[in-house]
Amino acid sequence: MIAPLEELLQALTRLPGIGRRSAERIAFFLLNRPEEARKLAQAIGSLHDRVKRCPRCYSLSGGGLCPICRDPRRDRKIICVVAHPWEIMKLERTGEYRGLYHVLGGLISPAEGTGFQDLTIEALLRRVREEEIEEVILALEPKLEGELTAMHLLERLKPLGVKVSQIAQGVPVGRDLEVADEVTLGKAIRGRIELR
Amino acid sequence: MIAPLEELLQALTRLPGIGRRSAERIAFFLLNRPEEARKLAQAIGSLHDRVKRCPRCYSLSGGGLCPICRDPRRDRKIICVVAHPWEIMKLERTGEYRGLYHVLGGLISPAEGTGFQDLTIEALLRRVREEEIEEVILALEPKLEGELTAMHLLERLKPLGVKVSQIAQGVPVGRDLEVADEVTLGKAIRGRIELR
Repeated sequence: MIAPLEELLQALTRLPGIGRRSAERIAFFLLNRPEEARKLAQAIGSLHDRVKRCPRCYSLSGGGLCPICRDPRRDRKIICVVAHPWEIMKLERTGEYRGLYHVLGGLISPAEGTGFQDLTIEALLRRVREEEIEEVILALEPKLEGELTAMHLLERLKPLGVKVSQIAQGVPVGRDLEVADEVTLGKAIRGRIELR
Repeated sequence: MIAPLEELLQALTRLPGIGRRSAERIAFFLLNRPEEARKLAQAIGSLHDRVKRCPRCYSLSGGGLCPICRDPRRDRKIICVVAHPWEIMKLERTGEYRGLYHVLGGLISPAEGTGFQDLTIEALLRRVREEEIEEVILALEPKLEGELTAMHLLERLKPLGVKVSQIAQGVPVGRDLEVADEVTLGKAIRGRIELR
C-alpha cells in the first residue's frame, strides 16, 4: 500500500462506524473524484474555524446567536438542558419541542474529574434569572453522570422559583420489552400513565 | 443547521455507504477532535497531489514504480489485467497471485463511449513484447463491458504468442446456489472441474 493512501485509510478508520473496507471504498471514491475530495477536505479543514458557540445557549453557531436562539417562533419561556450540541439535533427531529436549549458542555463526572464548574451551569442560572423562563426541562442521559448533574441542577434551579422537569424514562418505542434493563423497566412502571 | 456543519454533512453524505445519520456521527466526532479533523483534511486534501500512477502498470504509486512492480519477489512472467487499481487490492488479499498487474483504467463501453484507445492497452502490448511475459490473466468483471474488453485483448495479445487466460467464473463460495443467476450457473457447469 502506498503511503498517501495508507495515511488516508488510517485517518478514515478512526471515524465512528468506518471499518477498513468502508475506508477503502471511500478512499477510492475520493481518488476518482478530485473535486469532491477538495470540497470534503475544505469542509473538514475549516470546521473548527467556522463553527462557533452560541453566546447564549452554547449550542453550535456560525457566529453570533445560533439559529434556534435567533428564531422568533420559538417559545422563549422554556429551556431544555442537554449535555452536548448533537443531542439538540435528535430532539429537534422529534418535532415535539418548540422552546430554547442550553448546552452544558458535558456532565458532572467524578470518574473523569468533570465538576459543575466545568459546565455552563452559571450561564444557565443567569439565563433563568434574566430571561423570563418558566420551565427548565432536563434531557440528560439516564446514567450516573446524568443523574448527578440533574440533582445538582435541581438544587441550583429550585431557589429561582422556576419549574424543573425531566424527560420521561421508560421502555423504548418499537423495541421488545426484553431489551429494556431492569432499571429502565422499573422507571417505566413508576412513571406509568393512565389510559382513558 | 449552521452552514459550516451543513456543508460538511453534505460532503460526507456523498461518500459511498455514508447516510445522514452516519454523517452526523462523523461530523460531531470531528467537531470534538480538532487534531483528528486536521489530519483527515490533510490526508484527503493532499491525496491527488501525492498519489501517482505507476509508469509501468498504471496502478497507484507514491511516485515512480508501484510497490508491486518494484518487489523483486514477484513473478515477472505473468501479468494480471484489471480495470481499476482497487481490484488489485482485492486480488492481493486472496494471497493466490504472485505475478505483476496491469491496470486498464476502465473497460470498453459503447454505452459510455469508452473505446480501446481510452485504455492502457498499447502499454500492455508493449510490456508483453518487451518484458519476458509468458501469461496474461484477464481479471475483468463478467459483464458486457468486461467481455468486450476481454475479446479485444485476446485478439491483440494472441499474435504476440503469449498465453492468455481468464479467471474462473462460477458459483460464489459460501453462498447459496439460489443466489447465482442462470448465466453464472451455466458458466459454472461448463467450467466444471473433475474431482479426483
